Amino acid sequence: MSVKTPEQSRTIMTDLVLPSETNPLNNLFGGELLARMDRAASIAARRHSRRIVVTASVNHVEFNRAVPVGSVVTVEAKVSRAFRSSMEIYLDVWIEDRESGQKTKANEAIYTFVAVDETGRPIEVPEITPETELEKERFEGALRRKQLSLVLAGKMKPSDATELKALFV
Amino acid sequence: MSVKTPEQSRTIMTDLVLPSETNPLNNLFGGELLARMDRAASIAARRHSRRIVVTASVNHVEFNRAVPVGSVVTVEAKVSRAFRSSMEIYLDVWIEDRESGQKTKANEAIYTFVAVDETGRPIEVPEITPETELEKERFEGALRRKQLSLVLAGKMKPSDATELKALFV
Amino acid sequence: MSVKTPEQSRTIMTDLVLPSETNPLNNLFGGELLARMDRAASIAARRHSRRIVVTASVNHVEFNRAVPVGSVVTVEAKVSRAFRSSMEIYLDVWIEDRESGQKTKANEAIYTFVAVDETGRPIEVPEITPETELEKERFEGALRRKQLSLVLAGKMKPSDATELKALFV
Amino acid sequence: MSVKTPEQSRTIMTDLVLPSETNPLNNLFGGELLARMDRAASIAARRHSRRIVVTASVNHVEFNRAVPVGSVVTVEAKVSRAFRSSMEIYLDVWIEDRESGQKTKANEAIYTFVAVDETGRPIEVPEITPETELEKERFEGALRRKQLSLVLAGKMKPSDATELKALFV
Amino acid sequence: MSVKTPEQSRTIMTDLVLPSETNPLNNLFGGELLARMDRAASIAARRHSRRIVVTASVNHVEFNRAVPVGSVVTVEAKVSRAFRSSMEIYLDVWIEDRESGQKTKANEAIYTFVAVDETGRPIEVPEITPETELEKERFEGALRRKQLSLVLAGKMKPSDATELKALFV
Amino acid sequence: MSVKTPEQSRTIMTDLVLPSETNPLNNLFGGELLARMDRAASIAARRHSRRIVVTASVNHVEFNRAVPVGSVVTVEAKVSRAFRSSMEIYLDVWIEDRESGQKTKANEAIYTFVAVDETGRPIEVPEITPETELEKERFEGALRRKQLSLVLAGKMKPSDATELKALFV
Repeated sequence: MSVKTPEQSRTIMTDLVLPSETNPLNNLFGGELLARMDRAASIAARRHSRRIVVTASVNHVEFNRAVPVGSVVTVEAKVSRAFRSSMEIYLDVWIEDRESGQKTKANEAIYTFVAVDETGRPIEVPEITPETELEKERFEGALRRKQLSLVLAGKMKPSDATELKALFV
Repeated sequence: MSVKTPEQSRTIMTDLVLPSETNPLNNLFGGELLARMDRAASIAARRHSRRIVVTASVNHVEFNRAVPVGSVVTVEAKVSRAFRSSMEIYLDVWIEDRESGQKTKANEAIYTFVAVDETGRPIEVPEITPETELEKERFEGALRRKQLSLVLAGKMKPSDATELKALFV
Repeated sequence: MSVKTPEQSRTIMTDLVLPSETNPLNNLFGGELLARMDRAASIAARRHSRRIVVTASVNHVEFNRAVPVGSVVTVEAKVSRAFRSSMEIYLDVWIEDRESGQKTKANEAIYTFVAVDETGRPIEVPEITPETELEKERFEGALRRKQLSLVLAGKMKPSDATELKALFV
Repeated sequence: MSVKTPEQSRTIMTDLVLPSETNPLNNLFGGELLARMDRAASIAARRHSRRIVVTASVNHVEFNRAVPVGSVVTVEAKVSRAFRSSMEIYLDVWIEDRESGQKTKANEAIYTFVAVDETGRPIEVPEITPETELEKERFEGALRRKQLSLVLAGKMKPSDATELKALFV
Repeated sequence: MSVKTPEQSRTIMTDLVLPSETNPLNNLFGGELLARMDRAASIAARRHSRRIVVTASVNHVEFNRAVPVGSVVTVEAKVSRAFRSSMEIYLDVWIEDRESGQKTKANEAIYTFVAVDETGRPIEVPEITPETELEKERFEGALRRKQLSLVLAGKMKPSDATELKALFV
Repeated sequence: MSVKTPEQSRTIMTDLVLPSETNPLNNLFGGELLARMDRAASIAARRHSRRIVVTASVNHVEFNRAVPVGSVVTVEAKVSRAFRSSMEIYLDVWIEDRESGQKTKANEAIYTFVAVDETGRPIEVPEITPETELEKERFEGALRRKQLSLVLAGKMKPSDATELKALFV
């Protein structure tokens, strides 16, 4: 199975914030952004695996900046690391100011998808080779995050999560 | 400011999975479930704080079971711990079988909300006192999860995250 | 076929009023509330019958209070009486004030659903035994309402609607 | 204030049944049809009153025929009677067969709307003069239905509902 | 195959402009109106052909007037000319003022649909005979517009588009 | 006012075709694609002008290929020419095959937007300088298309449309 790069799965979803997607402060609902990021991440995972893909987990997502109604929001998704049948997708979200055109980072998120066959069973995906510095950094971090998921889900003993453990000792 | 219990914020959102919310395997899209959980969590946070609330972060969410179109899905949200102006919300999601009526756990999720005033500035919320065993366990875990968020966001040194560190050493 | 209680079909659907669901006075559209009540009622009917269910009729629905955008709305549905293959569902709708947390009754509604098999043909459902005073009162009224439906649809002569007639003479 | 005819408020809403609006039998959800009828009725009420209008109640609605996905559905609404500030709207719903072009009545419904000023207070509406036989029949029935609403809401004693009572004695 | 009139395909879609369909000036989004017109045109094409129909092209659409939120919008569609398997649909869009009841033309549009069989292959449709002056004028123009489409798509040489050419020489 | 390039307004909107957006052949509704293209075009127009923008017209849009449910669709929009306060936006739409990853052109479209101030009045926009061959070709064609719009709208005599006329004589 061939090796791919994160760039090959890069997915850009630029869209408006419509009035129907806002909270009482007239900013984009967190839930709506989570749904958009899920669709963008699923496309990146599909581009990497060329398979049907399903959301397996959402890792930490921090909402740093409110996104006002009428904003132009760009969600960019790339596969950051591939495991046997799962893929970690790293997302960056920007909003841009209408008058200055300046782009500001609104938040980052990490989703995990699994490739499945037509019956829903997990199926192998290509490996990935990071190219840029940022891709390499995210590739490295993916293993720690996977261990963290397993620890939090009670499927791995903290003492076996060697990469993660190294952070604290 | 008064102390409250998790039970006082308990929010139940039972609804159908409509055909418009499904992926190519005819199961509920991950993104749609993330959006529903965000709405349920925001109501729980509002019941606890009686303030406008905004999503601050989504902690680990694992999708363990596919949710087929036509399912009845119940999202249950409760505040598990309150910090100064932020609240951790713990969500449990069940689907129920139409023929047997049996309920199965589909997934759990943890969201963090912040209470704000009309100008969007963080504002203090009541403390919380857990009552049941499960509420106590989630209350304890919330501190570790908060430290983990701060560490992952680069706002706390791993060595200062004492509760978290204790897991690994 | 077993006998059930109204409590066994109780369905709670708590959700927000989103900006996309409002009329020019910034209150929830009547039609949107009718659709939510239909979904909640269908879940209650399904929990009672464990069958596919379809809306047969909507009896009287009165909109007593406007529901402003941003409100938390709780729809509660319970089967109030079961006939051969049809079920009357009684719904209570509350809104709650964000600042005081106080719940106010917004309206009541009565829907009728029919249980059907996979080909769409009516199929028998369990009987129901009301338990609380309110459930008993609604159970009694259901017969009069059924007669009223039949009379209004021209399927029963007013003189044969004995329970209903008793109201007026 | 001028007198109007039902014809002057006639509103026709023809639209498709989209896949997102269907139940497990692939027919239009009852709730979705209720919402469409509410929008059509509100336009008829607005055309009659030239005011902001809000849904006051939904009287009996019977779903006689399933409406399959892909159908063309026509909702036709006309004000059947005007009271001081409220209007009864009578709706007829047809579906048409794609191959034969034949129209079949799917159901009828009756909604009541109230005209309000910008602050939400009820305001007077024009009287109505029915013209056709059907309009006259519906105009007559409207009074009995109004009494029925008042009786069911506990705002009128059955013995005072003279038109309604006459049906049964 | 029988001949039909434009009147036989006439489709009226009256609906509200909901808050979720508006741009930053609180007017109906162009894209939303394009989607409504597409649904109305598809119904007219279906009424003419009694076949499955798919959008083939959108000819010139001019947005002359903004349509404010809360407006009542009427889209009226009629087949203006039928070719072998394609139909040109002419649409007129009006908005009406709530207070005066006056109707104003908001815009016109021309869509082309193709009738297809269950496998998606083009299939013959009935001819059309225009009746009114306006229908005749639109019928005549349809041929020029078809030539224009073919020229713009590079499927006809400008010199062969005799009706169109006559406009300029 | 500065001069810009088409590249500076380039907007990429990649998204899935959801089951709720399909016609009876399970392909994307024409109207839904028109709405997506309108949103993408409005973002490109906004990036060029840094103003509020509204849809002025849709020029010829041809739907060459059906877009099946579950497809990944990429809409790419760039300003092709700027006039005083209006901008022509050229859109290219691709779908990509999940298994081979191959991209196929589904259709092209041309929209015109106008930049307006907060009161809705047209306001001047920067000029544009095309760079690539394709951009130059589209820039040239824009003038003919503008003349064609004016001729079709009866605002310019065919004999004055010199660039357009040259096509035919």
